[in-house]
This record gives sequence, structure tokens and C-alpha cells, in this order.
Amino acid sequence: MVRIALDGMGGDGAPEVVVEGARLALRQWPGRFEVLLIGSPAALNPLLPVPCPPGLRIIPASERIEQAEPPVQAIRRKRDSTIVVGLGLLRDGEADAFLSAGSTGAVMAASLLALGALPGVDRPTVGAVFPTAAAPTLVLDAGANLDTKPSQLVQFAHLGSVYMRDLMEIDRPRIGLLNVGLEIEKGNDLALATHRFLRADSALNFVGNVEGDQIINGVCDVLVCDGFVGNVLLKFYESIAGFVAGLLHRSLDSGAAGPGLEEVYRVLDYTEYGGAPLLGVNGVSVICHGGSPPKAIKNAMRLAADCVESGMIEDMAADLGTLTAREGVRRPPEGVPRHE
Amino acid sequence: MVRIALDGMGGDGAPEVVVEGARLALRQWPGRFEVLLIGSPAALNPLLPVPCPPGLRIIPASERIEQAEPPVQAIRRKRDSTIVVGLGLLRDGEADAFLSAGSTGAVMAASLLALGALPGVDRPTVGAVFPTAAAPTLVLDAGANLDTKPSQLVQFAHLGSVYMRDLMEIDRPRIGLLNVGLEIEKGNDLALATHRFLRADSALNFVGNVEGDQIINGVCDVLVCDGFVGNVLLKFYESIAGFVAGLLHRSLDSGAAGPGLEEVYRVLDYTEYGGAPLLGVNGVSVICHGGSPPKAIKNAMRLAADCVESGMIEDMAADLGTLTAREGVRRPPEGVPRHE
Repeated sequence: MVRIALDGMGGDGAPEVVVEGARLALRQWPGRFEVLLIGSPAALNPLLPVPCPPGLRIIPASERIEQAEPPVQAIRRKRDSTIVVGLGLLRDGEADAFLSAGSTGAVMAASLLALGALPGVDRPTVGAVFPTAAAPTLVLDAGANLDTKPSQLVQFAHLGSVYMRDLMEIDRPRIGLLNVGLEIEKGNDLALATHRFLRADSALNFVGNVEGDQIINGVCDVLVCDGFVGNVLLKFYESIAGFVAGLLHRSLDSGAAGPGLEEVYRVLDYTEYGGAPLLGVNGVSVICHGGSPPKAIKNAMRLAADCVESGMIEDMAADLGTLTAREGVRRPPEGVPRHE
Repeated sequence: MVRIALDGMGGDGAPEVVVEGARLALRQWPGRFEVLLIGSPAALNPLLPVPCPPGLRIIPASERIEQAEPPVQAIRRKRDSTIVVGLGLLRDGEADAFLSAGSTGAVMAASLLALGALPGVDRPTVGAVFPTAAAPTLVLDAGANLDTKPSQLVQFAHLGSVYMRDLMEIDRPRIGLLNVGLEIEKGNDLALATHRFLRADSALNFVGNVEGDQIINGVCDVLVCDGFVGNVLLKFYESIAGFVAGLLHRSLDSGAAGPGLEEVYRVLDYTEYGGAPLLGVNGVSVICHGGSPPKAIKNAMRLAADCVESGMIEDMAADLGTLTAREGVRRPPEGVPRHE
């Protein structure tokens, strides 16, 4: 039984959408979760049947951090916010994972503060799963870290590699570096330096540079890039499905493209993947899109449980331990990351 | 009559594809072009009818620069290459525009060497036209300049603004800055600094930051970004049409999606746009994709003629003149740009 601290007040549709997501998960996988639903009992209770569903209980928290609030100030000021309370449960061993569709910046900052970074990690990272023509690709970083250094991209490669091994059961995940050309001498300063580090790292299965038009072919399992590029690419990708559907709608007889469009949507639908764990902190903290529907919350809960049960955090610590041992240094965390 | 120096040996399908493109253009727009087809007469003559079509003549050039050659060395060594010869014609006033589907790096380096940069331009730039749900968006830079500075992105904004005004007849082109958030305080170091410059530039119609998921809505006419991001995004976009078509193919009855797919392809088809002019050099030099089919060559010839007839170069010089006057400096070109 995985104990999930669930931010009941996070996301555009909270609390209704979050509660519905939790109920879907409890129904689909009975006995797998214990849900600690965090938020105002006055707001949450009316959404729950009487008696409360088995496996779910409310943990009171009186405050809510808004999207627009500066994350670091918000988590310092709002000590009784759902995010701070939930991560406190995880830190204190009363929960196994934390999950929120609230402010990404606040979840990142609070996770780092409550859980700490894994040794050897400068800044935690958030990935996004890109559907491809083959297996999905984890794009790291997806917007959490802008202006990254080569050494940080190498850390992302290690974190992503363990993630794909433990969660997707890929034996030796292929690591690609997003770049403007395949050749070793192509790229901006960041890509050129990172390429050299990745090539020299025998613990990684580095397959080389990946150009923009190869992403969709699923040529690697983990695609490493600066969070600026990753974020632009992720949002662009998410917007494509609607665009293509609109084009087809204009030119097809109604109904003719029904099954085809459904398939496009299914493949491109991020809700299938639910959420993204914050990688590099010492605990399982999963971030969902602010606009997540109940299905995405449900799938993110399964993802959180998978992270816990696979021993991902322990495996990351072991993997990074070898990285820092090789480098002969243990870098201290550089503080709260700049988030998107 | 626009005299176009056409690189007969540039591109994957050269010389056949280039010759076919030229013939398509001469047929579709008779009397508009004089084509100076540059290359080996022994290779070109067999592809042409006897007598040679009116408006086309061969200019001999014995060498060809390959994609893999380092551009700067190649243009220095191969003085009788089609690229060097063709740009010489433009420099000497014997042609009005140059067009090549050959090595982008070599065309850029040779254009800068032969034509010079416009005053106020550090590095020439190459844009890509992104089809959107509204009017097309010119994304600048699309891969010619990696590791750009804020002042260079501002120059790109000016060049793109004149281009869209003169070529697309947009009165006050909307300039957007590609970024990870809409707010002024969002972004990496480059985007933060560039945002401030663009906001302060009263000669530009700056509409603010544009996120990845807004590109497809056509919210600006010119989207400014570093060439690393622009290149990744462009290639990713180009690869999407095939991916979506593949998904539909798998799930639709054959034929049912015919018209819809055609519409998708038409909108996403870069051959509609043909080529991209190198912006910031003192002359019209148009670069085509190496894999351009004849139709793309044909459309690029029309684009080159449009650039010449609109007075784009003179307008850019005038626009940049006001920029440099305001800045109180005339920046010298920094030499040959690092290309993708």
C-alpha cells in the first residue's frame, strides 16, 4: 500500500478534479493506495460520499499557494499550505509520495527544501514524456532549469537513465543530446561541451546528438536539453494535436475521420502519462499539469506508486554516488532552482 | 525581368531537380525571370531541350561545394564553384539575386564575403516560415546563429519586420519573443535581456513573449529566438506532418482521409514557401532546403524575385540606419557567422 499525500487544492479544477481523480484511482486499483487528501475539510468533505471511501482520508491544511505567487516567498509564508503540509508528511515518513497539480515552482522549491537534493545533484529537474512513433521519450529538462551548465545536463542524463530503467523497464536507456546536427562538432557552446562529457561517461548509454526531426522517431529513451528548449518544444508539441484536428475537421466529411482522430489524440494525449516526477530530490514528488483532468490525476497517482515501488530514489542515489565518486567531488546543492 | 543566378549543382537532387524547378518557373511566370544557370555545361546541357528555353542560359562553373565541406575553407579553395561564381555575378551587378539549395553554411559565408553585411548587422540570419492556424510566422533565427546575444536578436527583429512588411505586405508586423512564459520576468538570461531591448524599441511593433503552444495560433508575424531553439523547433515541426499522416494511415480506411491529409500536407508543406532569404547581407541571396523538390525551387525563384522587386534590401538598410543612429554606433560585422 503506497501512501500518497495528494494536494487537494492544486490545479485549475481543484478541489473537484483532484477528488475525482483520487476516486478514479481508488476504484481502478483498489488496495493499492492510501490517499492522504490535503486541504480544507470544508471544501473537500462535500465532494466525498458519506462515509469516506476506504483508503482516503483528509489531512487539514488551511492555505493554498496560487500560481501567480513567487514560489520561495509563498512556501515560507504559507506554512499551512497544502504543498508545505504534504511535503512535510513525506519528509516525516508519514507518506511515501507527494502529488500536486498546483504551482510547479512552489512544488519544486518546497520539495527541495523539505526533502533535499540527492548527493551529486545541483538542481532537480522535471521531465516530460514525448509520445513518438516508437516508445515514448523522456525529455529532460522540460522547463524547470533555464541556463543550465554541461555538468547539470550530465546529471539529468543519469537521473533520466535510472528513471527509464526503473519505471519503463528499459535495460540500458539510450541517452540522446538535443542538437542542431548529428556531428560531434555541431551545436551551441552548451551542446558542444555536454556532448564531450556524455561521450566520456561510460556509465551512460549515450547514442549521440539528436536533431529536431528525429525526436518523433523515438531514437532515444532520454533526450537531454536545456529547460528553455525543452519547455518550448513540449508546449509546441502539446498544441499540435488540436491544430491538426482543426485542419482535418475543415476538410473532411463529418465522421469520416473519427477513428483516425481518436488515435491521433490518444497518442498525443499527455493525460495518458499523467504527471512528471521531480527528479533529483530525495523523495517521490510528482507534478501534474495545472489543467489536468481527473484521468491525468489518476494516472499520476499510479506513476507515483510505481516510483515508490521500483526503488527509484535509492537507485538514483546509488547511480549518482558513482558519478560523484568518479568526479572526486560532492557538489552541494546550489539552492532553490530558477523555475519556469 | 529579374536576373536570377541559380546554383545548378546545389541540393540532393542536383542538377536534375534544379533544372526542372527553373523550367517550371519559366513556364509558370513567362517573362518574369532571366535564369543564369550555374554549373558544368556537360552536366546541365543534356537536361535542357535544344534550343535552350528562352530566358535561360548556362554560366560555366567547374566546381561544386559539398555539404560536408567546412564552408569557409571550401569557398576559399573552390573559386570556380557554383556558389562563389553565382555570388560573384550578384556582387558585380550581373544578377539581381542568387539562389542555391547547396550547403547552407557555404552560401552564408560566401554571401557575407561577396556582398557584405548591411550596416548595423552583426551576423546575417536565416528565417523559416512556420505555417500556423492564421497567417504564417517567420521564425528568426532558424539555425544560422547559435549562442546569439540580445543585440543580435533585436537586429533579427528589425530584419524580419522589414521582410514581412515588404514581402507579405503586413503594415506593422507583430514581433514576438519566443519564451517559456508570458510575463516579463520569465525566461533565460538571453530572453530576459532581449525582452527589455525589444520593449524599449519604439520602431518595432513588439507584442511580447510567445510560448511554445501559441506559435501554432499565429500570434505574431515574426518570432525571434536563438538559432539553436529555432532550428530544433523547425525540424521538429517539419517531421510532424509525416508522423500524423502515419497515425491516420494506420487507423483509417484507405482513401477516407484523402482530402483531409492533402489539406494537412498543404498547410505543413514547406515546399509552398520554397526558400529563405539570408537576411542582413547587402543583396538577395536565397537558400533552399537540400532536399527541395522542383516545386520548392520554383517557389524560391518567385520569392527571390519578390525580394528584388519589393526593394527589401534598401528598406532594410534604411531601417537599420535608424537603429544604428539611435544606438550611436555602427557595429562592424564580426566576420563569418558560425552556422549550423
